[in-house]
Amino acid sequence: MLAAQYVAGYGIEVAEVAPRPPGPGEVQVEVAYVGICGTDLHILAGHMDERIADHGVIGHEMSGRVAATGEGVTGWSPGDPVTVMPLRWCGQCPTCRAGNEHICDHLDFVGIDSPGAMQQRWTVPQELLVPLPGALSLRAAALVEPVAVAHHDVVRASLSPGESALVIGGGPIGVLIAVVARTRAAEVLLVEPDPYRRSVASGLGIDVLDSGSEDLTGALDAWSGGAGAAVTFEVSGTQAGLDLAVAALGARGRLVAVGIHAEPRRVDMRRVFWKELQLLGARVYERADFTAAVELLERGSVPVDAIVSRVDVLAQAPAAFDSLARGGRVMKVLVDCGAAGGSA
Amino acid sequence: MLAAQYVAGYGIEVAEVAPRPPGPGEVQVEVAYVGICGTDLHILAGHMDERIADHGVIGHEMSGRVAATGEGVTGWSPGDPVTVMPLRWCGQCPTCRAGNEHICDHLDFVGIDSPGAMQQRWTVPQELLVPLPGALSLRAAALVEPVAVAHHDVVRASLSPGESALVIGGGPIGVLIAVVARTRAAEVLLVEPDPYRRSVASGLGIDVLDSGSEDLTGALDAWSGGAGAAVTFEVSGTQAGLDLAVAALGARGRLVAVGIHAEPRRVDMRRVFWKELQLLGARVYERADFTAAVELLERGSVPVDAIVSRVDVLAQAPAAFDSLARGGRVMKVLVDCGAAGGSA
Repeated sequence: MLAAQYVAGYGIEVAEVAPRPPGPGEVQVEVAYVGICGTDLHILAGHMDERIADHGVIGHEMSGRVAATGEGVTGWSPGDPVTVMPLRWCGQCPTCRAGNEHICDHLDFVGIDSPGAMQQRWTVPQELLVPLPGALSLRAAALVEPVAVAHHDVVRASLSPGESALVIGGGPIGVLIAVVARTRAAEVLLVEPDPYRRSVASGLGIDVLDSGSEDLTGALDAWSGGAGAAVTFEVSGTQAGLDLAVAALGARGRLVAVGIHAEPRRVDMRRVFWKELQLLGARVYERADFTAAVELLERGSVPVDAIVSRVDVLAQAPAAFDSLARGGRVMKVLVDCGAAGGSA
Repeated sequence: MLAAQYVAGYGIEVAEVAPRPPGPGEVQVEVAYVGICGTDLHILAGHMDERIADHGVIGHEMSGRVAATGEGVTGWSPGDPVTVMPLRWCGQCPTCRAGNEHICDHLDFVGIDSPGAMQQRWTVPQELLVPLPGALSLRAAALVEPVAVAHHDVVRASLSPGESALVIGGGPIGVLIAVVARTRAAEVLLVEPDPYRRSVASGLGIDVLDSGSEDLTGALDAWSGGAGAAVTFEVSGTQAGLDLAVAALGARGRLVAVGIHAEPRRVDMRRVFWKELQLLGARVYERADFTAAVELLERGSVPVDAIVSRVDVLAQAPAAFDSLARGGRVMKVLVDCGAAGGSA
């Protein structure tokens, strides 16, 4: 079978490998679609070489069908549509014992710390499987993981109906946060510098602003009626985005830190104090976010066609990565690994 | 009567002035004790000249007795022991309308933005008065305001019994936060560089560490059993204190930002994300914090004698400020304005 491997110093190589049969408690999944995430681009850029094996298979956003089950596996049959929640925790560390397994001190993020989904058959522990409704297309189901991220972020914000939510950064996660926030009847505004991404969001009926516009402060003031935002989602990972996320909040506003800031950032702590702001980190998701994401997709609340810009077959995975790395007119890119029968 | 006035470019001047009779809805208070706060030292250093009037009377931590009431005042009689919650809000701004009057966009902090307590008779709007129990000494009652600050900080942290709380900075507010956190059965540790302040805290049975000790990280790890703190209170207002407050938290830990950071600070936002931390600004107090502070003092939960290092009569107010500005073996300094009958 084919597998897309990360080769340090080179990039993505599609190679012929033998599928790993499921061991006790494991399930082998015939992979349908795998989404490429910003994290995968970081891997490709060599930023995560200390975590990922050379010739490791990446990919952690996926859909597929059960192909075979190992010894002791119950409740799963070949053909069952599934996705995988790609987190394995130790259950022993203080973080796990406090009930925060999803950010376990020794978390194995499957697709980074251990082999990922971008191969025709993928073998995982059965407890990672999440069932999919038969009516949900496997193409749409490839978005369960990023929708779960967005759901987790919105839950962290404790967003209430009618509250104003500013999303800073209009890539797939930013747009999905806007979409999920809207299902909670929040007043959503998205700020993004790229005109293509703004047009995608705008086409979904999301109010958008150019982060480079001259009177951004004035426009935000008008939007919030002078009160400031109740919630800001910082999805850009930039200093400018963080500055805006702090400055745009009203009294007791909540900032959800979604983007990854590789270096320490300047934060106006005097404003945090003065306005009694709340800054909340939000990382990955819990099982409930995965379940909620499946439901949102099943209900049709997620505009899958607008978000998926491109689908490449597995043999063309390097081109799929290139299209994202080059930027431009692209949001989510999927790799078709074959289990959906070439229905892309 | 005498009043301690701030004279820009000079310092504190005690002058003979005429008391202001109470107008409609106002109450004139015979002042007993006024505490000197870190903010007052900032005023003295000229940092707040844009907010305070030249020859303005400062002071916002106080106790006293009702001396006279203006037209339309009901429920207050001469001799009633009182303190003052020194906040006046507009009631109209978005922050007030959202129920956060205590951080009103146009807040009048009495004793900074309008005349304060350090005078023999002080006239204030009746709605600022908070009744004191007859059994509570007026000397102890001078601590109601800083205890309310500490109570507000602990409430912001949502501190639960058994949780670990690290207090960074052992001045009066830091020690009072430790004291209030202890009443909630938290496991408290206080970090402070000054040996005198450490000895005061230690004398109250609070566990203390020298913030300059060589293996601070190791000691904190041992204290939290490797889990990290559930809550950190950043009371130092320094970059080093903030770094420690972020680094010492365990997963989903809460940092309460109490100290004032005049300039933007470096914050490890990657850690905020990775550990899903929460950073919470905490400023002044609400009415419920004042009521709770009165109760804590009445119950004897606050070690007043250990915290009050020195009492000077009003005529000696400049010396009282000097003793604090010089630092050294001093925590809270009170100015005796006379209403307690020289019982200091």
